Amino acid sequence: MNNPWNNRRPSARPPRATPAPRPVHGGGGGDGGPSGPGRSGDELRLYGMNAVQAAFKARPEALRKLYLLEARLARLQPLLKWCVANRVGYRVVEEGDLNKLAGTTHHEGVVADVLRAPTLPLADWLQQLGDAPALALWLDGVGNPHNLGAILRSAAHFGAKALLLSADSTLALSGAAARVAEGGAEALPLVRLPETAQAMAQLRAAGFGLAATLVDGGADVFAATLPARLVYVMGAEGEGMDRALAAQCDLQVSIPGSGAVESLNVASATAVLLAQWARLHPR
Amino acid sequence: MNNPWNNRRPSARPPRATPAPRPVHGGGGGDGGPSGPGRSGDELRLYGMNAVQAAFKARPEALRKLYLLEARLARLQPLLKWCVANRVGYRVVEEGDLNKLAGTTHHEGVVADVLRAPTLPLADWLQQLGDAPALALWLDGVGNPHNLGAILRSAAHFGAKALLLSADSTLALSGAAARVAEGGAEALPLVRLPETAQAMAQLRAAGFGLAATLVDGGADVFAATLPARLVYVMGAEGEGMDRALAAQCDLQVSIPGSGAVESLNVASATAVLLAQWARLHPR
Repeated sequence: MNNPWNNRRPSARPPRATPAPRPVHGGGGGDGGPSGPGRSGDELRLYGMNAVQAAFKARPEALRKLYLLEARLARLQPLLKWCVANRVGYRVVEEGDLNKLAGTTHHEGVVADVLRAPTLPLADWLQQLGDAPALALWLDGVGNPHNLGAILRSAAHFGAKALLLSADSTLALSGAAARVAEGGAEALPLVRLPETAQAMAQLRAAGFGLAATLVDGGADVFAATLPARLVYVMGAEGEGMDRALAAQCDLQVSIPGSGAVESLNVASATAVLLAQWARLHPR
Repeated sequence: MNNPWNNRRPSARPPRATPAPRPVHGGGGGDGGPSGPGRSGDELRLYGMNAVQAAFKARPEALRKLYLLEARLARLQPLLKWCVANRVGYRVVEEGDLNKLAGTTHHEGVVADVLRAPTLPLADWLQQLGDAPALALWLDGVGNPHNLGAILRSAAHFGAKALLLSADSTLALSGAAARVAEGGAEALPLVRLPETAQAMAQLRAAGFGLAATLVDGGADVFAATLPARLVYVMGAEGEGMDRALAAQCDLQVSIPGSGAVESLNVASATAVLLAQWARLHPR
């Protein structure tokens, strides 16, 4: 069979652009290689220099395929050498092909198919964590990939230790979210929670306090005592936090404001909340 | 001439949907009415419930035309009554027409053409401001409309008094930015700065300190003494702040982080910086 994948060692002379790859859109199985899994299940299509390079740095063995513009050959040399040494296929393609592969023009010259990082069960994450001060975010309903990406970037910047997802959450990392996260998606794990009461009990047993974040009516977060082990529970973009869930938390906080707008964007609010905890608990 | 505009008083019986309006795309003059200015110059096409309602609340006389879905008739009654009383045309249209008018599906059922709020000269803004504590943002290169919108929303939330634009800035409010700002675009003026040395001199004469915001290498903003009258200078998304401009500021600050990502998103960083000043200088 004709193998279109370029496994030769990159040379000083840039390889000729190979024929356009067949775009793959979800559905699974189609472009996963002779026996590989479909991209829509275990694989994730990443794009953007920081997103791809962070995945390569954190989990090189997760790399399945790489597509890049000729202009990116120099900057991606370490990655290409790894591909050659480990028999991972890469292809130099044209801009238009990359647009199709990424489904957007915001690919910055590189697209990669990688295995998804595994979602951790809560108990496993708590066991790995140790008992130092730690901050985590519980996302209860955030659905916009740009907000998810911006939240991951801020969470990585402020050293948060995990993104916790409700048992029934359908949220998963997408290529768009990973690009917006600028590498932050590789810095902290997604943790799958059991049902709410059990999740809260396990977190409290591990010394965490739970802070519901409300658009208004909560205690001023700048005056609140935030515990050294804290989970901020963030609500959905439109509706905000589920009131029943908020009532079950140990504290309810809000970011005081002028009232000129109803609320902050959820990603901006998350950055402010992360910063406030990090300020009180510097490492 | 056939006047397609509906100037009748809204009744309990919803008006029938009128024929699809002709979409207007920049270029000016085409849909500005018999003698009105073109939308691309003095007019701005807004969409999104909070953006349109904030403009109506702040500057009802700026409203030129309104397009809405039948489903929005009830919630927009006050606005429609104003339109009738002031002979401003409104039209009930179908979803597809609204998508074309807004150039996006994110219109939330309403599109409005409004006169742009005037950009203030620096001297005029300083004169209006008085001498109480005040915070402003100087945007030096921010170009992404979503970032601009998120910055406006956060600036409004934390009570910032103006967005200052460099003399050579091409940044202007767009419908996309105003929608993301969720009403925040009406809460503070855009102020046009003279050339840099003069702008800095005028701001300092009015008691403002200027803080350059750097991705790294600046003083820890959480430990810095931030003056009661402060201008944060924010750099462009990719390159960050112009180094020469940063050197001319009174202080240089950074948001300390883990190093897991290169930087925060500019809108997230702005929210954190605004929050820190607001925390130190509560009203």
